[in-house]
Amino acid sequence: MSKKLFFTPGPAQLFYTVEQHIKNALKEDVASISHRSKQFQNIFASTVENLKTLLNVPDNFKIVFTASATEIWERSVQNLVEESSHHFVNGSFSKRFYDIAKSYKINASIEDNGFGSPFSLEIPGSPELIAVTQNETSIGFGFPQNEIYKIREANPDALLAADLVSCTPAVPIDFTKIDMAYFSVQKSFGLPAGLGVWILNERCIKKASKLEEKGHITGSYHTISQLLKYAEKNQTPETPNVLNIYLLGKVAEDMIQRGLKQIQNDTIYKSTILYQFMESAGWIKPFIQDSKFRSHTVAVGELEGVKPADLINYGLEKSMVIGSGYGPFKESHVRIANFPTHSKEQIEMLVDYLAKFQ
Amino acid sequence: MSKKLFFTPGPAQLFYTVEQHIKNALKEDVASISHRSKQFQNIFASTVENLKTLLNVPDNFKIVFTASATEIWERSVQNLVEESSHHFVNGSFSKRFYDIAKSYKINASIEDNGFGSPFSLEIPGSPELIAVTQNETSIGFGFPQNEIYKIREANPDALLAADLVSCTPAVPIDFTKIDMAYFSVQKSFGLPAGLGVWILNERCIKKASKLEEKGHITGSYHTISQLLKYAEKNQTPETPNVLNIYLLGKVAEDMIQRGLKQIQNDTIYKSTILYQFMESAGWIKPFIQDSKFRSHTVAVGELEGVKPADLINYGLEKSMVIGSGYGPFKESHVRIANFPTHSKEQIEMLVDYLAKFQ
Repeated sequence: MSKKLFFTPGPAQLFYTVEQHIKNALKEDVASISHRSKQFQNIFASTVENLKTLLNVPDNFKIVFTASATEIWERSVQNLVEESSHHFVNGSFSKRFYDIAKSYKINASIEDNGFGSPFSLEIPGSPELIAVTQNETSIGFGFPQNEIYKIREANPDALLAADLVSCTPAVPIDFTKIDMAYFSVQKSFGLPAGLGVWILNERCIKKASKLEEKGHITGSYHTISQLLKYAEKNQTPETPNVLNIYLLGKVAEDMIQRGLKQIQNDTIYKSTILYQFMESAGWIKPFIQDSKFRSHTVAVGELEGVKPADLINYGLEKSMVIGSGYGPFKESHVRIANFPTHSKEQIEMLVDYLAKFQ
Repeated sequence: MSKKLFFTPGPAQLFYTVEQHIKNALKEDVASISHRSKQFQNIFASTVENLKTLLNVPDNFKIVFTASATEIWERSVQNLVEESSHHFVNGSFSKRFYDIAKSYKINASIEDNGFGSPFSLEIPGSPELIAVTQNETSIGFGFPQNEIYKIREANPDALLAADLVSCTPAVPIDFTKIDMAYFSVQKSFGLPAGLGVWILNERCIKKASKLEEKGHITGSYHTISQLLKYAEKNQTPETPNVLNIYLLGKVAEDMIQRGLKQIQNDTIYKSTILYQFMESAGWIKPFIQDSKFRSHTVAVGELEGVKPADLINYGLEKSMVIGSGYGPFKESHVRIANFPTHSKEQIEMLVDYLAKFQ
């Protein structure tokens, strides 16, 4: 029924099965059932199970739900950091995690790569938590997985927190080499916004318990211990976004059927098409110059002699919605999402059409 | 399409227009638009405007959105209380606000009415915030509005926080006589869960600024100042539950059309039918004995010689879902919601059927 095709980086084009799942949810009264009912517990259990299967989450990890990935930044700071954290900042979103740590008076250190350059990977002091953003949605910077794993190897006492917003499950991650990961559902999963997913291992859980035992203020209804206490019963501390938890489970199931490897291979194929176009067009080029650091799910193009608004309006003439640049890049960038819901044909159609812009 | 009729106190029966609004939202790509777009700003502005009109919210109040009413308890504690709060506890939910204050090491005092008796209304010390729960969803206790207003008159230096979860807009409230109110949307508004609404006046805003200036930790992305900064632009600090903000605006519009006075009068009519049934049945009686303190939107019945599960199953035979008792009352109570979506005919049908139970 949707009249437009969204290539925006989130909220994004709904995954192609979502509309039918919403209709089924209404038929099954999913939005009316009690969040303390057996029916809800089954939904919760099934969504967690499907996510674990889809993402190959090891048994030493738990999955809990929040309202957004933004909330997970705050809850991580409250529950996992007493004194210091370190933040690899490759854009506006990784910067925001740093700012949230500062709001809680954490001694947060930062390595800012000036939007797009490689990091030194050197870390001052002994931070309790190290934050990396695998896919920086604001500028399309992809943090190579091997570098993330190396950071953890070099800093075994710290917890390694990986921001997978907008790349999971389209880009692989090895959970055995990180301590926690999180994402929101309105990106690669193609769901309506309003749900965050937090996947954390026993090291995080132990750290949170330790801080709680020490009398550190870790929050209230959404401390790690409260989230886990309810998750044990397949519930949440508060009345959650039940509909989205249901939809996430269904989409994860659809993705298992399609095959994770297939989704990830298609992602690379489609991102190659997008970057080839940007490299050959003449009036748009990939903002991230070194292809090693380019995001596979959000391709950001820097425009030359072209106004973003004109290109966006050109797309709208064919009902294709391209994302505008983020923050300071609003007047010079466009962002094109390449999520699992986007077919090869759709990306090819977009690129063919954009190639005729000038 | 819904096969059951829910009389549960929340999540609840969807408001009768919601399903059509969801279909329209999908047609209009509401779940895919950017939360920084003009289209979203229009939705935000329209929802706020409709709520202000429906609820007669004065101009000195602002409206902001959170993920749940539970979150508003926490944000109130973080932003409005430096040292002390006082809590009138008439059930499990008002108790939870108190517990959240304790989690943040607030010197919180409590008057617990032992589940259902009148309060003394005496307040020790000079708390910065006084919390009252107009409609205690757990046991069906309704706090008379005049007593709420008297508390504020007697304590002019404190902020009066009114929990309107599960009663707004079915029960009147005079905003000029309170400082803040909040509710979640899965009760009287009949929406899917996953959104909290916080309505607060300039006294709250000033207090939050004062605490922030003093260097008090007030949170991060959802401090009152951040929520207001974005609300000024008809936006939210994080990617919110866009679909629910849209639906809330639409349902508020429908309720304006129907007329608030009509909704509130119908609520009294229907609750009278419910309590008359409970008083005459012999095997169920209103848990709150003094009718002055009975909730109009959640009628709680105490069973005598009848198991809740048997009564609930009896309802299910006709696809009518009655709520179970909350927490310690799971084995002795049932809860019957009387929300704006429930017609007089539906409540009469329920009561006629339940009357034949024994």
